[in-house]
Amino acid sequence: MAKTDWKAEAKELKKQLQRLRGVGKVAKAAKAEKSAKPISPLAPARFPKLPVIAGASFAAVEAGVRYKNRRDVMLVRLAPGTAVAGAFTRSTTRAACVRDCQRKLAMAVPRGSGAAIIVNSGNSNAFTGKAGDVAVAKITESVARSLGLPAARVFSSSTGVIGEPLPYDKITAVVPQLTEALAEDGIRMAAEAIMTTDTFAKAASAVIDGDGGQIRIAGIAKGSGMIAPDMATMLVYIFTDARIAPAPLQRMLSAHMGDTFNAITVDSDTSTSDALLLCATGQSPAKPPKGAVAKAFEAALRGVMFDLAHQVVRDGEGATKFVEVRVTRAQSRDDAQRVAMAIANSPLVKTAIAGEDPNWGRIVMAIGKSGAVADRDRLSIRFGDLLVAEKGWRAKSYDEAAAAAYMKGDHLVISVDLGLGRSARTVWTCDLTHRYIDINADYRS
Amino acid sequence: MAKTDWKAEAKELKKQLQRLRGVGKVAKAAKAEKSAKPISPLAPARFPKLPVIAGASFAAVEAGVRYKNRRDVMLVRLAPGTAVAGAFTRSTTRAACVRDCQRKLAMAVPRGSGAAIIVNSGNSNAFTGKAGDVAVAKITESVARSLGLPAARVFSSSTGVIGEPLPYDKITAVVPQLTEALAEDGIRMAAEAIMTTDTFAKAASAVIDGDGGQIRIAGIAKGSGMIAPDMATMLVYIFTDARIAPAPLQRMLSAHMGDTFNAITVDSDTSTSDALLLCATGQSPAKPPKGAVAKAFEAALRGVMFDLAHQVVRDGEGATKFVEVRVTRAQSRDDAQRVAMAIANSPLVKTAIAGEDPNWGRIVMAIGKSGAVADRDRLSIRFGDLLVAEKGWRAKSYDEAAAAAYMKGDHLVISVDLGLGRSARTVWTCDLTHRYIDINADYRS
Repeated sequence: MAKTDWKAEAKELKKQLQRLRGVGKVAKAAKAEKSAKPISPLAPARFPKLPVIAGASFAAVEAGVRYKNRRDVMLVRLAPGTAVAGAFTRSTTRAACVRDCQRKLAMAVPRGSGAAIIVNSGNSNAFTGKAGDVAVAKITESVARSLGLPAARVFSSSTGVIGEPLPYDKITAVVPQLTEALAEDGIRMAAEAIMTTDTFAKAASAVIDGDGGQIRIAGIAKGSGMIAPDMATMLVYIFTDARIAPAPLQRMLSAHMGDTFNAITVDSDTSTSDALLLCATGQSPAKPPKGAVAKAFEAALRGVMFDLAHQVVRDGEGATKFVEVRVTRAQSRDDAQRVAMAIANSPLVKTAIAGEDPNWGRIVMAIGKSGAVADRDRLSIRFGDLLVAEKGWRAKSYDEAAAAAYMKGDHLVISVDLGLGRSARTVWTCDLTHRYIDINADYRS
Repeated sequence: MAKTDWKAEAKELKKQLQRLRGVGKVAKAAKAEKSAKPISPLAPARFPKLPVIAGASFAAVEAGVRYKNRRDVMLVRLAPGTAVAGAFTRSTTRAACVRDCQRKLAMAVPRGSGAAIIVNSGNSNAFTGKAGDVAVAKITESVARSLGLPAARVFSSSTGVIGEPLPYDKITAVVPQLTEALAEDGIRMAAEAIMTTDTFAKAASAVIDGDGGQIRIAGIAKGSGMIAPDMATMLVYIFTDARIAPAPLQRMLSAHMGDTFNAITVDSDTSTSDALLLCATGQSPAKPPKGAVAKAFEAALRGVMFDLAHQVVRDGEGATKFVEVRVTRAQSRDDAQRVAMAIANSPLVKTAIAGEDPNWGRIVMAIGKSGAVADRDRLSIRFGDLLVAEKGWRAKSYDEAAAAAYMKGDHLVISVDLGLGRSARTVWTCDLTHRYIDINADYRS
């Protein structure tokens, strides 16, 4: 037997070890990335600077409803004279707090007393029977007592798991602490406290020149999964110091729901808890908006709604691409909506986008299944400016390499011109990735 | 510097290496598993033994349309006197071959000449403009010449990628070879030739006693993704030797589509190519089915359709669970359908099932978003026999551990009783797993 050269052997083994460790490192990094909760690659660079809204103050604390080591309840106090408008999910199994908000908004309570909003994350208080109604009453009455308001002016939302009893005593226990902490600049903490599977806190604002001073708008939102159209989706709270009455406020809100929050979809699933409240404190020095100022105010409000709606899509569970679907020249508005949503909700279209595959055949499939009137030989499809298909087939100018390069972007525009009528519809969605499955196939996420 | 004990060092390094290699092996195995095309865990144990259908012969060869090293075109020859019935996708962007089948079935061509079916996988010939129509004509005319049939009695299907020109010359080139190879026992090869993302070949059969002899039924199907309801989904070919005219054959087929192929969904996406052809050669020694025999024949036919439809779900892309969704006591049939499909198509319900999470809150969500009339306090939800929710909340008897154990099974029944009316609907689906993303986020799968 030859004598083993242990030194050479050790050297060789060391080399093998280093190689294997390198592989191990990559595997470990991949695993860590998978289990972490990374911020969406589509998130804005930073939380925006928001203007203070006179008459609105905010607080957020840790109540331990479900999550540990984070703030999970937020309170907003709104000054006397505040007008409130709302939009809510149309789900037939909507949560107790949603029904309570709807009931209260329909009541003619004098605005003189002001208003409040209390929101918890971690539990949606949906499908919790009579106990759910009791929980809402306990929470809103506790806030009413603490702030000296009628309970009919205290609105509440809950977001999180469905069907679990809401431990309302954990929330009522922190109401004094919340009241104590109320501050005009606390809106960011409020935006953070309402997050569930969100990877970033969402906010948007606008400031316009009114007659006699500035008018300010600031809004916050949460939403990431269970986002579907034709409902008031997710939780959204928008505040303004404009002097405006509830009726025109509600009219403006309703007018712009269709092209903002009702034009987005993450997964075609509609939440039981979604609510939007728009509150005008009336504390701006500017006169009530009229004429050009009213128009500017409405445009600014729409801009804030639009921005927040898009941020929800940008934080869609697992999203890596922000996708705009534009349908034009449909025979009817309903047809345009059907085609746009068939594309935006198609798992095959969404997985192709995740794979950066310009698989336009799946767009054809989605148009075909939508139920809308379509003529194969009249419709055309574009990815960005690239004409992909027309006259019943792939366009002559189609260049697969150019289309594949386009798909590598993270803001994609898919346009379908049906060539039949005058109706159009644009909706926004995101791609369907492994991360969506990771987030939602975990036991009771 | 102390002298290094290279032997000890080498030993230690060897140990570390072995440990790391163990980890590496696991990682490698996981990777191999991911890239392989595993057979669905829900697949039947084996391909069934099928009865020979007198008057029907089959062949399959390799034409190289898209796939390499496998048979990808199949031909069926049907004896003179064969009656043909069909059901097709309602997509407005359906393929040229689908339109051609529909046109030919509507023509009153004498049956005396027999018929034929030619099918290729790898390319769907959908959204291929006028060139698509030319391809269908070239292929069916080639078969007509080779078999001595009128082209109006040659039906064709294509399945695979959408929007690519079909290289029909590759198919016409193998028609003589196909004709040569026709054999009564070739049905299994035919079932294999039409597979795309399928992980197993699908077949089902029945034999009943007719008046004067046996009547036999044998069917094959393909389908795995782009499977959605309310259309004639996927490719299905059913053959029988029964002596039956086209009109009653079509009536029987149409009568059972609703509760078989139109009651399944994999991903809510509807193919542009789907077709079902039911062919009766009339070569059974038994008299034309009447009375009790006709009833038995219809039941057997329904059984074959049901079996094939379920096999498509069992081979749903990435499926690990076979899920039956039963909705009862809805106010209308339309409401029952809406609730059943809202549950069966919900990404959140399907990912929860993949994660074996009895997340019944997501069932509540899906009921709520369906648009059907529902009353929170009247509906009840069951997983198998386990009562989960009733009277607007989690059932008193609900046991999370028992529900979690139930979810570990691979055949799950989710029942929703709406407690409002008399309409019911049952549909079948599968779960949504990482493998669905793997399959569909690959570049042009």
